Amino acid sequence: MNRPIREPIAQRDVTRLQDGNGSLVSDDLVVEEPLEIRLGDESIAVVMRTPGHDMELAVGFLFSEGILKDPDDLLAVEYCSDVTADAAGNIVRVIAPSADRAAAEKARRDIYASSSCGLCGKTTLDAVRLLAPPLTPPTSYPASILAVLPERLRAAQSVFARTGGLHAAGLFTPDGDLVLCREDIGRHNACDKILGAMAMRELWPLPNRILMLSGRASFEMVQKAAMAGIGTVLAVSAPSSLAVDYARDAGMTLVGFLRGSSMNVYAGEVATG
Amino acid sequence: MNRPIREPIAQRDVTRLQDGNGSLVSDDLVVEEPLEIRLGDESIAVVMRTPGHDMELAVGFLFSEGILKDPDDLLAVEYCSDVTADAAGNIVRVIAPSADRAAAEKARRDIYASSSCGLCGKTTLDAVRLLAPPLTPPTSYPASILAVLPERLRAAQSVFARTGGLHAAGLFTPDGDLVLCREDIGRHNACDKILGAMAMRELWPLPNRILMLSGRASFEMVQKAAMAGIGTVLAVSAPSSLAVDYARDAGMTLVGFLRGSSMNVYAGEVATG
Repeated sequence: MNRPIREPIAQRDVTRLQDGNGSLVSDDLVVEEPLEIRLGDESIAVVMRTPGHDMELAVGFLFSEGILKDPDDLLAVEYCSDVTADAAGNIVRVIAPSADRAAAEKARRDIYASSSCGLCGKTTLDAVRLLAPPLTPPTSYPASILAVLPERLRAAQSVFARTGGLHAAGLFTPDGDLVLCREDIGRHNACDKILGAMAMRELWPLPNRILMLSGRASFEMVQKAAMAGIGTVLAVSAPSSLAVDYARDAGMTLVGFLRGSSMNVYAGEVATG
Repeated sequence: MNRPIREPIAQRDVTRLQDGNGSLVSDDLVVEEPLEIRLGDESIAVVMRTPGHDMELAVGFLFSEGILKDPDDLLAVEYCSDVTADAAGNIVRVIAPSADRAAAEKARRDIYASSSCGLCGKTTLDAVRLLAPPLTPPTSYPASILAVLPERLRAAQSVFARTGGLHAAGLFTPDGDLVLCREDIGRHNACDKILGAMAMRELWPLPNRILMLSGRASFEMVQKAAMAGIGTVLAVSAPSSLAVDYARDAGMTLVGFLRGSSMNVYAGEVATG
């Protein structure tokens, strides 16, 4: 019963650059899609998740929120079948008439943003994508400039150096100069701190800037960049499939696994040499 | 104006175990605290963040949500002063009369859970801690058993092996046997999938189980374990200060930087040898 309808891994073509040489390969990416959790017919939450064990996720969410307290409360868990093809496998309904309705209502009403989420669930799957402004096509930066940015970001991370526990985001000029670095336990917060700093300096939007992330590139991070008009996003680790799809749709440049002269170009172009 | 009232780093005593030898040292931990973002007098969101550049975070959140669109809309940003000592420096008010009220209302209404958040902001700071059930005091496990768990978790991560892009959570018995492993792009989802799987098997709560995390231990992860009655949480990377404080309050065992025979015991006890 728990076999996911959606796949957890997706393939995308990617340009792999190493020491100035590029090759086109098919890359496995982790899938990131919204899952709507319903209690009966009521929408309780939308979480961005990797497909797989979706029913366990829905049930676990309800237990960890205190909405369900006893396995005996659980009558059924199922994928909703009366949905569009797009949403098939992305909506799970939990049948539990004796669930704590007050806790459910409180969760529904009280759940706001989080330390790691700029998307922060929309009520319907259709509303997932925020309306980003038109993007200025990003420059095709030389790989040699991008290669030095992770080290420059790391050097600017003052709190990480002491605690080893922080995400960082850095904003760079086309020449690879650091404009500013922000750290936070939530990767989205680090990004929001940069966006806020620039807006507060009346520098908005940010068409000719590069956003560098210390970790993974999720959909929300790429979307935040798009909301700021930033066309180029670099990440030390892997992007999700949705991040890649969004970046391609939006005409952005997205580079992952940026480690020295080695990098994967998932969207847009990087100039070799 | 942007100097945070709260500190981004906190010290906690920690027992550092290496090759069977333990020493008590003071460790720097990254601080994790809720920040309430207000637009005028209206609460828009509560995000778990690391203190520092709080005003930029609030402003950046509003811009990336599309609630603010033009720096000229921004009249003032300030810490709320009419609050309790506990909340001082944890509430930021943004004054922007021409903000998009419809977008703000939509954000307030629509924001649900996220890929990495089980806390998912409560409307007031006071409501941050969910009511976890009474905890059975955890066993003091031997360091030699804990030392092998990261490798066992990694071996069970099938999707990570291919994509390099996933968080994992593993549930283990007191003997170090893997009960199950779940992966997700959101660390909290991986944990919820485990909780849901056990609840669906009518195995709930989980007093004699160990939860192992592939990454960091945030407050929400530790709280999720507590909601499931799991008394022992292990993480490959750093815990936040709030995670440590919560684990100590709740009488849990919390181990971070678990890398072979080297580990930091932040709460509870681990038996050497």
